[in-house]
Amino acid sequence: MLLAASFCFAQEPGDLKPATSNVLDAQYPKVDGNSRVQIRFKAPEATKVKLNIWSGPKVDMEKQADGFWTFTTPSMVPGLHYYTLIVDGAEVSDPGSTAYFGGSKWASAVEVPEAGVDFYQPKDVPHGQVREIWYHSSVTGAWRHAFVYLPPDYDEQTKTRYPVLYLQHGGGEDESGWARQGKANFILDNLIASGSTKPMIIVMANGYASRVGYVVPDLTGKPFGSPEFMKVMQERMGAFEDDMTQVLIPFIDKTFRTIPDRDHRAMAGLSMGGMQTFQVTFDHLDLFSYIGGFSGAGNPFLTGTKFDVKTAYNGALTDPSEFAKRVHLLWIGVGTNEPERMKSGLESLHNSLDAGGVKHVFYESPGTDHEWQTWRRDLKDFAPRLFQTPSQPASSAR
Amino acid sequence: MLLAASFCFAQEPGDLKPATSNVLDAQYPKVDGNSRVQIRFKAPEATKVKLNIWSGPKVDMEKQADGFWTFTTPSMVPGLHYYTLIVDGAEVSDPGSTAYFGGSKWASAVEVPEAGVDFYQPKDVPHGQVREIWYHSSVTGAWRHAFVYLPPDYDEQTKTRYPVLYLQHGGGEDESGWARQGKANFILDNLIASGSTKPMIIVMANGYASRVGYVVPDLTGKPFGSPEFMKVMQERMGAFEDDMTQVLIPFIDKTFRTIPDRDHRAMAGLSMGGMQTFQVTFDHLDLFSYIGGFSGAGNPFLTGTKFDVKTAYNGALTDPSEFAKRVHLLWIGVGTNEPERMKSGLESLHNSLDAGGVKHVFYESPGTDHEWQTWRRDLKDFAPRLFQTPSQPASSAR
Repeated sequence: MLLAASFCFAQEPGDLKPATSNVLDAQYPKVDGNSRVQIRFKAPEATKVKLNIWSGPKVDMEKQADGFWTFTTPSMVPGLHYYTLIVDGAEVSDPGSTAYFGGSKWASAVEVPEAGVDFYQPKDVPHGQVREIWYHSSVTGAWRHAFVYLPPDYDEQTKTRYPVLYLQHGGGEDESGWARQGKANFILDNLIASGSTKPMIIVMANGYASRVGYVVPDLTGKPFGSPEFMKVMQERMGAFEDDMTQVLIPFIDKTFRTIPDRDHRAMAGLSMGGMQTFQVTFDHLDLFSYIGGFSGAGNPFLTGTKFDVKTAYNGALTDPSEFAKRVHLLWIGVGTNEPERMKSGLESLHNSLDAGGVKHVFYESPGTDHEWQTWRRDLKDFAPRLFQTPSQPASSAR
Repeated sequence: MLLAASFCFAQEPGDLKPATSNVLDAQYPKVDGNSRVQIRFKAPEATKVKLNIWSGPKVDMEKQADGFWTFTTPSMVPGLHYYTLIVDGAEVSDPGSTAYFGGSKWASAVEVPEAGVDFYQPKDVPHGQVREIWYHSSVTGAWRHAFVYLPPDYDEQTKTRYPVLYLQHGGGEDESGWARQGKANFILDNLIASGSTKPMIIVMANGYASRVGYVVPDLTGKPFGSPEFMKVMQERMGAFEDDMTQVLIPFIDKTFRTIPDRDHRAMAGLSMGGMQTFQVTFDHLDLFSYIGGFSGAGNPFLTGTKFDVKTAYNGALTDPSEFAKRVHLLWIGVGTNEPERMKSGLESLHNSLDAGGVKHVFYESPGTDHEWQTWRRDLKDFAPRLFQTPSQPASSAR
C-alpha cells in the first residue's frame, strides 16, 4: 500500500486534515496532501503499541509525553485502508475511525483521497436509495439481512422493471461492505447520471450462511486455509448458493420490479465473493448471463484442482462460441499491487481463458492492492458493460 | 444496570451462550439464563484490563493463563448494554461485539434477552424496509444521511399516503441508533401487524448539524456540560432545527407518500433527541401535533431556566384546553433505574404539567436505566397512540 515515490520521508507532514472516514469531531487519523496518514491513539499506561496498516511487518508507534501514541506513514496509495492497533498484545480498533466490518470484526479504516478522482463521491446528481430488507430463509432457518440499491427513478417510474446485479463482499466482511467501504451506491448514481450505465437494482447479500441444524465449530486458532476453516467455508459456500438461488432471488423478484430472467441478472463479487460468484453462476447459468470476479474468481482453494478451460465448470467453457452466446460478459480484475499469489492466480486464469479462446474482459487496477480502491474501480469498469447486449429486449413495462 | 436479586454470586454461571449481538462466529461475550454476562478479551501483554459496562466504578478483569482476560457480571437487567474495555489506559471496543455508534464512537454492546418478551424481535409478520437516503442541505452545505422506515405495504399500496414520525437518537449516537440498537423497524412491524398501530413512516435523521462556515472547535478535554461543549451543542441544536424544518421535512414530503400536515406529523427522541424534540416541536407547532420525550424533554441544560408551565415554550402551555386541542399527544417517559438527576427531572416536568392541567402521558419503564431497553419500551407505548385522533381525516389517497 506504499507509493513507490521518491520524496523525503524525514520531512514533517504538512496540511494534515482529519480523514473523511473519521467519526464526528475526531481529529485523528489525519491525512496530508502527500497522502501521508498520521495516527494518534491514547494509551497512557501501555508498554508497546503497534500499528497494523499494511501487509508486511507491523510498525511500532511512538509514545508521546501526553499519553498518546503516534505514527505517520509514508505516502499511501489512494483508497480506504483497514488498520488496527495492537496495545500490549490486544488487537483493537481506533475509536476515532468509523467502524467498517472487515477481518471478521468492526475495524478501523482511513480514507486516502485520490487526486482528481470523485467517481465514488456523492455529487449533485439524482441519488438512488439503499434499502435494508429482511427475509426468512428456509435454507438457513433464520432471518437474513441484505441491502438493496434502487436506482434514482425507481419510485417515480412505477411501471418500469429493472435488471439486477447481485454484488458480494469479501471474506471477513459482510453485506454492509459494498455500500460503506465500496460506496457502490454513489458509484452507480454517478454512472447512471453520466448516461453510460443502465439503471439497475443491486442486491448486496451476506455471503455467510449455514444450513438449518449445522453447528459451526469453534474456529478459534484455525486460520484461513486450515482444513477446519476450509471445511466450514465449503459448507457455507453451499448453503449460500442454495439460499441465494432458492430463497433470495425469488424474494427479490417478488419484492422489487425486476426483469426476472437470466438476460437481466448479473453476479459479481470481490475476493471470496468472486469465488462465490463463479460457483453460483456456473452452477446456475439458467439464472445468470453476466459474471464478474474482482480479485477472486474460481475456487482453487476449495477444490485443489488446476483450472482447465476444457473441463472447468462442467464444460461450460469447452465451446467458446457457444459460451459467448450464452454469457454476455465474463469479467475478471486484479490490482497490480496485490499479493503475488493473487495476481498470478488471476493472470493465469486470464491467460487460460485467452488460450482457450474464451471471450472475457481482464482489468488491472494500476497501483492498488487487495483493497477497496481496486474494487471501486472494478465496479466502475464492470457496471457500464452490464445489460447492454443489443439482442436483449429493452427494459420494459409489463 | 444490576438486578437487585438475591442469588448466589459465587455460583459458576451455567448455560452460557454467545450473545445475539456478537459478530459472526464470535464466542464471547456470552450470556446465561440468569442474565449474567461473561466477557473475554485477548491482551496477552497487558498489565491491567478494566471493563466499563455500567455507570459507577469500572471493574478489573482477571488475567487467565492463555493471555485472555475475563469477567462475569452479576445478573444484568434486560436490554442492550454498551461496554468498553480499558487496556493499559486505552479505552477500546471488544472485537467480538457488533459495533454500535454510542458515546461518539463505535462501541461494543451486549444484548441481554428479556424473558418472554419479543416485541423487538423479527417475527413472521410483514416487514417494512429501512431505506437510506442522502440529501444535500442548504443549511449545513453538505450531504446528509438519514434512515427511513417504510411500513410493510408501502410498495404495494401505491395510492396510500402515510403519517410520519421523526425519531431522534441520543447524544453521542447517530442516525443508525434507532434501527440498530433500538430495533425500531421490528417494533413497528410487530405493532402494525397486531393492528394496534397505524402504518407510518419513521424518519431517523442525524441529530448533529453545523451551519455552513461554522468551524467546530476541538472539543478534546471539554466534557459534556462544560461551557465550550454546551456552546457547540446549542449551535448544533439550532442548525439541526433549521435543517430539519427547512430541508429535511420538505425533502421527505417530496420523496415519500406522506400526509404533509401537522395532524400527521410527530416527533420524538431519546435523551438529547428528546431535548431536540421539545425545541423543534414547540418552535414549530405549525408542523407537529404529536410530541414525545424519551428520557429527555425540555432543555434546562442549555437555557438554565426553571420549567414554568405558564411561561414555558413561549406560552404554548398557558391555556391547557387550547393546548390539548392543538397537540394531540404530549408523551414523556423515563426508566425507573435511571440516574437520579434524569429521573427527578422528568418526574418534575410530569408534576408541573399535572399541576398546570396540561394533558400528557407519563410512562415509567420498570427497572431499566438510561439505556435502549427503556427506549424500545417507550416506542412500544408511544407509537400506538399516534395518528389515532378521530377528528383527523383518515389516511387517504390524493
